[in-house]
Parts: sequence; structure tokens; C-alpha cells
Amino acid sequence: MEKLEALFDHITSRINVNLKPLGIDVEPILKNAVPRERHLLYYAFYALTTDHPLSFKFTNSNLAGTYLLGKTNVDRSVIYKSNIRGDELKLKGDVVEFNGIKTRLFYDEVIRITNSFLVKTLVHNQSKNPETPEVFKILNTVAMPFSNIHGTTTEGVYLGSFATADLSILHNCILGDYSYVQAGDLSRQTIEPGRVWIKYDGLFEFNYVFPNGVLEYYVSTDKNGQLTGKFIEYVDEFKDDFVPIYSTVLPEDVDGVPDDAYVSPYAVIKGKCTIGKNALIAQRAHIEDSYIGDGSNAQENCYIKNSVYRGNNVTAHGGKVVHTIAEKNIFIGFNSFLHGTEKHKITVGRDSIVMPHTIVNAKEPIDIPAGSVIWGHITKQKDLEEHCMPLDELAKTTDIKIGNMTFKGNGKAFVDAFRHRIDHILEENGAYYNGTDATRGHAQKTQAACFNILQPFQSGPEMGMYPTMSIGEYAK
Amino acid sequence: MEKLEALFDHITSRINVNLKPLGIDVEPILKNAVPRERHLLYYAFYALTTDHPLSFKFTNSNLAGTYLLGKTNVDRSVIYKSNIRGDELKLKGDVVEFNGIKTRLFYDEVIRITNSFLVKTLVHNQSKNPETPEVFKILNTVAMPFSNIHGTTTEGVYLGSFATADLSILHNCILGDYSYVQAGDLSRQTIEPGRVWIKYDGLFEFNYVFPNGVLEYYVSTDKNGQLTGKFIEYVDEFKDDFVPIYSTVLPEDVDGVPDDAYVSPYAVIKGKCTIGKNALIAQRAHIEDSYIGDGSNAQENCYIKNSVYRGNNVTAHGGKVVHTIAEKNIFIGFNSFLHGTEKHKITVGRDSIVMPHTIVNAKEPIDIPAGSVIWGHITKQKDLEEHCMPLDELAKTTDIKIGNMTFKGNGKAFVDAFRHRIDHILEENGAYYNGTDATRGHAQKTQAACFNILQPFQSGPEMGMYPTMSIGEYAK
Repeated sequence: MEKLEALFDHITSRINVNLKPLGIDVEPILKNAVPRERHLLYYAFYALTTDHPLSFKFTNSNLAGTYLLGKTNVDRSVIYKSNIRGDELKLKGDVVEFNGIKTRLFYDEVIRITNSFLVKTLVHNQSKNPETPEVFKILNTVAMPFSNIHGTTTEGVYLGSFATADLSILHNCILGDYSYVQAGDLSRQTIEPGRVWIKYDGLFEFNYVFPNGVLEYYVSTDKNGQLTGKFIEYVDEFKDDFVPIYSTVLPEDVDGVPDDAYVSPYAVIKGKCTIGKNALIAQRAHIEDSYIGDGSNAQENCYIKNSVYRGNNVTAHGGKVVHTIAEKNIFIGFNSFLHGTEKHKITVGRDSIVMPHTIVNAKEPIDIPAGSVIWGHITKQKDLEEHCMPLDELAKTTDIKIGNMTFKGNGKAFVDAFRHRIDHILEENGAYYNGTDATRGHAQKTQAACFNILQPFQSGPEMGMYPTMSIGEYAK
Repeated sequence: MEKLEALFDHITSRINVNLKPLGIDVEPILKNAVPRERHLLYYAFYALTTDHPLSFKFTNSNLAGTYLLGKTNVDRSVIYKSNIRGDELKLKGDVVEFNGIKTRLFYDEVIRITNSFLVKTLVHNQSKNPETPEVFKILNTVAMPFSNIHGTTTEGVYLGSFATADLSILHNCILGDYSYVQAGDLSRQTIEPGRVWIKYDGLFEFNYVFPNGVLEYYVSTDKNGQLTGKFIEYVDEFKDDFVPIYSTVLPEDVDGVPDDAYVSPYAVIKGKCTIGKNALIAQRAHIEDSYIGDGSNAQENCYIKNSVYRGNNVTAHGGKVVHTIAEKNIFIGFNSFLHGTEKHKITVGRDSIVMPHTIVNAKEPIDIPAGSVIWGHITKQKDLEEHCMPLDELAKTTDIKIGNMTFKGNGKAFVDAFRHRIDHILEENGAYYNGTDATRGHAQKTQAACFNILQPFQSGPEMGMYPTMSIGEYAK
């Protein structure tokens, strides 16, 4: 494994150039977080469809369980259990707008990851990158387990476990565990664990920090990258369910999936489940004994168990939902943890928004009124007083502080932006598909995916590595 | 499937340029022999090891169940269920000798298949090509089921079902069903079905033709490429055993395989089998209730059932062996059919040679004496009178005719060449491995192979096609 070790060392040094001055040494973390021998066991696989123009190129990279879709370009990279989707890449000729200035794309947008080091990352894309709209890039970034990078640019960034960089340009910075940022350029900043921060310059700012002592119970990472807490314990319970489906290109079909819905062959559907029309169950989603209503989606790394989705519900990447009844049009943000029990069910009223990184750990039945926004840490109904408000009321606000949450700015713009985004997500995922081409979304487009499985070299100095590979456009 | 159809038509026309003047129209054959929808169901897979320098490049090609190993290069090609091994490619700097003239290779030898059309071919390689020793090439060639191309050059060749072009340069010609040639440049020739022809200019010539009416029972192809007869019936019995292993990169391990032996994960081992030390069971070999002694091999497309191999036995590509006891150092030639039964066993004495394309279909127990060479069609012990002679006696011959067999030339050279080749095959396959690097052969080298599975596009005009793909050298 000399080559793999050398690659690890090489990239680690590149990352530390940026991160050591910010107070984090990624060397011990990366040494311990990724046992080298695991790299032999994983299969990299990638999906191809003719709807997603591709141009994969891996150079001297270890890819492990990757899933690339749409144009990509990888350099000397270890990627490990990543996703990286690229199914919302912009095309040559598309016009994009940044702060009111319009510009037209010269080329099809590509993803480009150079000298990089994602570890267990999920990267999605819907780039909000004004610098080079043709390139959704990431340079040398460390993404700890279940962290999300949703937009781009990144560069030398450390994302803690279960952290999210949403719609993100980041440059060099550190995101603490379970922090969520949607705040643009964060160069030279360190975001504390458990901070949820949404900032749109000159328009609004939402801020919440988990109170002292709460977060450690859910997520905690030591200096060696060792991850503990309820989140990882919960997720680890389902680990074995994924094992059998990853070495084959044809996992068993799930019965009763409507023609216009999509269940990834790399998702797990367990027990008694119903999948509605236009629903999307993405790869590495885990659904058990649940009803997924029409137009609902479970994005990558979601875990939904003993729950009911009435329809058009969005579960953003990493959402964990159990014993929950979600009425129609609910948005459940990134890495939220809605943990009801058989006796203590959670009910979320229709048209509500569960903010990203919200924890509802029900110690009694909890009932969220329709049209609410909730955030923070909720264990009892009474907690809603400080962690829930009607969206209509928030829309009238310009300055409010409730418990640890502060909001400043144009409440209406904030609520409208959120609603618009939810609608956009449903549209992109194919929830509104009516048989016409214009309404096709991921649920319909991804149906045609074919899958390819790669296995790293199993011996010698190349052990754990893949050969240089370039997969070009299909002939036009 | 428009793209696939267009590719089929395009290549068919290329091949017919050469073959129609020779009296064969491949269009109806290729239309019927390969049902288009099958191309969606197959997975192409390829093996990688660091022992076999690679540089795969597929361009607008449908590859179906391919297995490439070692440097390759494919152009606008349909390959279908091929193998193509390239594990005996020569390297830059190697010195090769043709007719006493030595030349040094400028580059690593590559396989190159351009505008080609192999259909169910197995191509091996150990190139005897004096034209361009750096390129093991095939241009546009049709290979019907279970035909073998062993050396090269080929070009516009039609190989009938179960035909073999051994150590071969061919150019434009037709090989009838179950014909075997080892005769160099065959441009503008048509070889009749069931002819076994070994010719070495100025040294010797072996000739045998199956008698009228015998061959049709075993193999027959109509004008539409429809294949009938006992061979295909026999082989089809085992078809289903291969299905489950082809969609996964990690078929189940076979127990009790010695460390220095190799059983391909894409071979089938069924019932109670023993695999000896330094043995090699190649991919698409099928072994059932048999004992495979030390140093023995079962090459691609072999079927061995209810049989015993005492050790150092070679089964060349496509050999079918059932209820047979093979003593030590037996060579069973390409596509031979040794069909004993529970009551009518076949015994082959040690150091014997079963000529390529020999049929022993036992209607009573048959006992081949040690040190024999056998050929042709044998059903009873008495048939040996016209289809068997001691090798030592053949070595003394210069001109002999027995039944349909004629031999002219230097008998000693013929026997020596055969013995030398058997020894070389054993050496190449690792039968003589003693723990040193110099004695490693395929059985040891292929152990480190990792496997990659590709699935063609499943919908749209690209249906059945693969994207352009280039898999380069691993970093050095």
C-alpha cells in the first residue's frame, strides 16, 4: 500500500498548509479516521445516464465507494465513501445571475476536484459560484462522516462530522461538528460546533447555537477523529443493511414502485414500505416500515423508519426520521434528527419547515402545529415555546430573539426564500412530473442509470489504488 | 437502440467487403446470432492486475461480457461475450525470432481491435506475428460461438462455431465449423468444416477431415447462424450456472483452494471438487465433481465433469471432458470432446496427446495407452486402430496415412514441437511454481486481479452502448 500511503501523506500536507494556521492538524485525524485496509474492501461505483453528460477522469486516485454522476474530473484524490452528484450542472449557454448581473456559460459546467481529500463526504451540486460558473470546484477539503457540501467552491476546508456547508463558497475555514452554514465566503473563520447560521448580506441573518452540554450527547469528535454520540450510534445500526448491495450491479428490485418514482438500487428498503408516485429514494437512503407519499423524497444518507410522509415532503441529505408523522409539504432540513418512539410519536403539521440541524428527541408525544418553523433542541412539547414559531409570524419580523435563536432582517424575504427553495427541490426531484418532458426530475431521469463497479488493486505497492481512468462522452 | 443498430450495420458492411467474395454473407448470421436485446442484459467486466500492464481504450463500442487483461485498445467494436486475454504480451526490449531472424521490440506489445466484430470469441495471445510484433491485431473478424483465436493477426476472417485458429496469422478467409488450423497465412482460402490442419512449411503437415455425416451430429450452423448439435446442447446444460456470478465483483470463494492455485471468481466449481497445487481454473471454466491434480489447468470455456486429472494436465480452450480419467501430463487439445459415461469411462494414459478437435464419444469403456496421440472421431475401443498411434512411432515417421489422417514430413519435429508446447503451457500457467518469482505463472499472477463491472446504457438511443472509456497505466 505504499502508493496509497504516499498519496495520503501528500494530500494531508496540502491541506495542512491551509488548516494548521487555523488551529487544526488533520494528520492524526486522517490517519485514524480512515483505516487503510478498508480501502481494499470498498467498491467504487458510478452511475451513467444519457441525461447527465459525463466526462469522468480519475488520476491516480483512490475512490472507494464513490458515486459520480454528471461531468466530473478528479486528480490525485482520495475520495472514500463520497457521493458527488453533479445532476444539476449548468449547461453551455445557460444564463446565470449573481447579484443582479447576468452571465452566460461558455462551457458545460464540470465538477473538478484536485489534490483533494474528501473522506466520507456527500457533495451535491447546484452551484452558486460566481467566480467560475463553469467549474464546480473543490481543492483540498476534509469532510468528516455525514458532512454535506451542497453548493461550492470549498478549497482548504475542514468540515466536522455531521456539518453542512449549504449553497456554499467557503475557501479556508473550519466548520465544527454539526454546524450548519449558509453564509458565503468564510475564509479564515472557525465555526463552533452546533452553530446554525444563515446569512444573506444586507437581507437577513438567522443564528442559533446549541446550548452548552447538549451537543456532546449527540455528536463529538476527539483529536484523532474518533466520532462518538447518539447520531453515529443510530446510523451504525443500519450499516450492515448496505453491505450486500454494494458488490453487485443488480441488487434486487423493490416491488410496487410506481413507474414514475425512483428507488435507487443502492438504497435499502426494508420491512413494509409504500413508495408513492413521483417519489425519489436516493442512493444510501434507508427506509424501513414507512409510507413515503406521492412526490416525497429521501435524499442521500437519509434514514426514515416507522414513519408516514403524506406527500411532497423533502428530507434533505442526512435527515434521520423515526416514529414521525409528516403531513403534506414538510421540509426536513439537512442532518435533522426527528427521533420519536412507539409511545412518543412526533407529528409535524403541513407546510412546516424543520430547520437544518434540528434535533427533536421526543421524551413525550410532540405535535408541531401546521405552518411552523422549528429549530434547535426539542425533547418535550413545552420546548416548542423557545424552538418553534408560525412561519407567518416570522415573515412579519425584522428582529427577534427566542432562547438561543436570533433573527435579524427581512423575515418575509427569509420565509419566501425558504418556500421557494422547497418548491424548487420538489420540482428538481420530479415531484411535479405529469408525463411531460419539462416536468421530469431526478426521480424520472435517474431511472435510466446504469451502474459500473470498480475494485481497487488487491496487492503489491498499488494495493488500494485505481488505475488512471477516463470515461468520455457517449458518441453524439 | 439506434446507435447499436447503426454500429452493427457499419461493421457488418466492413466485414462483408472481405467475406462476400469468398461466398459468405455475414449479415443474416450476425442479425440472428446476436439478439439485440441481449446486449442490455450483459455486464462487461475486466480484470486488472499490476502484473499485466494495461491501457484499455474502448471507443463507441459495445463490449457485453468482455474480459480484457493486459494492454488493449478497441475501436468501434461490438465484442459481445469475448475474453481476449493479453497476459502473454511481449514487452519493450524483448527479442523475438522469426525464421531465424531476431528483432527487438520498440514498444510494449498491445492488442488492437479496430472496427471489429467478434461475437462470442475467446482470443488468447502469444503472438507469432512477424509483421508487427508490437501489435497483436484483429481488424474485422466474426467469431461464432466457442471459436478460438489463439495467436494473431486475423483481419477479415469468419470463424465457424467451435472453430480454432491456433498460433494464427489469417488475413481474409473462412474457417468452417469445428475446423482447426495452425497453418499461417490463409488469405483467400475456405477451410471445410471439421478439417484439422497443422502445417509448418518445409517441416511437416498433419491433416485430418471428419468423415461425411459425422460432424452434423455434433455441430451444424445454418445460413442464419442458427447453431445445433450435441456440442451446443451439452454446453447449454451448464449455462444457468454462470448467471449468478456475472453481476457481482465478489462471487463466493471456493473452499480448499491451495494458496498457489487460482480459481477465477468467474469460473463455476460445482459439487465435490478438489483443486491441486499450482492448478489454474480460468474464467468461464466449469468444473463439476472432479479432481484437478497438481499443476493441471482448465482454460477458458472448458467443461470438466465427473473426471480425474492426475496432475500436470492441460485442457486447452473449449475442451469438454466427462467421465474421464486422465493420467499425468496429458494434453487435451482445443474444443476436444471426451464424453465418457458412468458405465463407459474413458482413460487416457500418461504423456498422451489428444489432438485439438478430437471427439471421443464412448459407447463402451475406452482405454488410451500411455504415450499415445489420438485424433478424429472415436466411439469404440476398436476405433483407436485408425485414430491413435504411439508418439514414439509418429516421431519416426516421415509419411503416413491412417484412415482419414495423413502426416507428411519430420515426425520427430512434430512430436518435439508438441511436447515443447505442452511444457511451455504448463510453465506459463504456473504449474512449475516453486515459490520463486521466475516460476510464477498465470495461476499465481492472476490471483491479484481486481474486477470491474460495466453496464451498458439502459434506455434511449444509446441503449446497449457504453461510453468511450480509457483506463490508463497505474502510476509508476
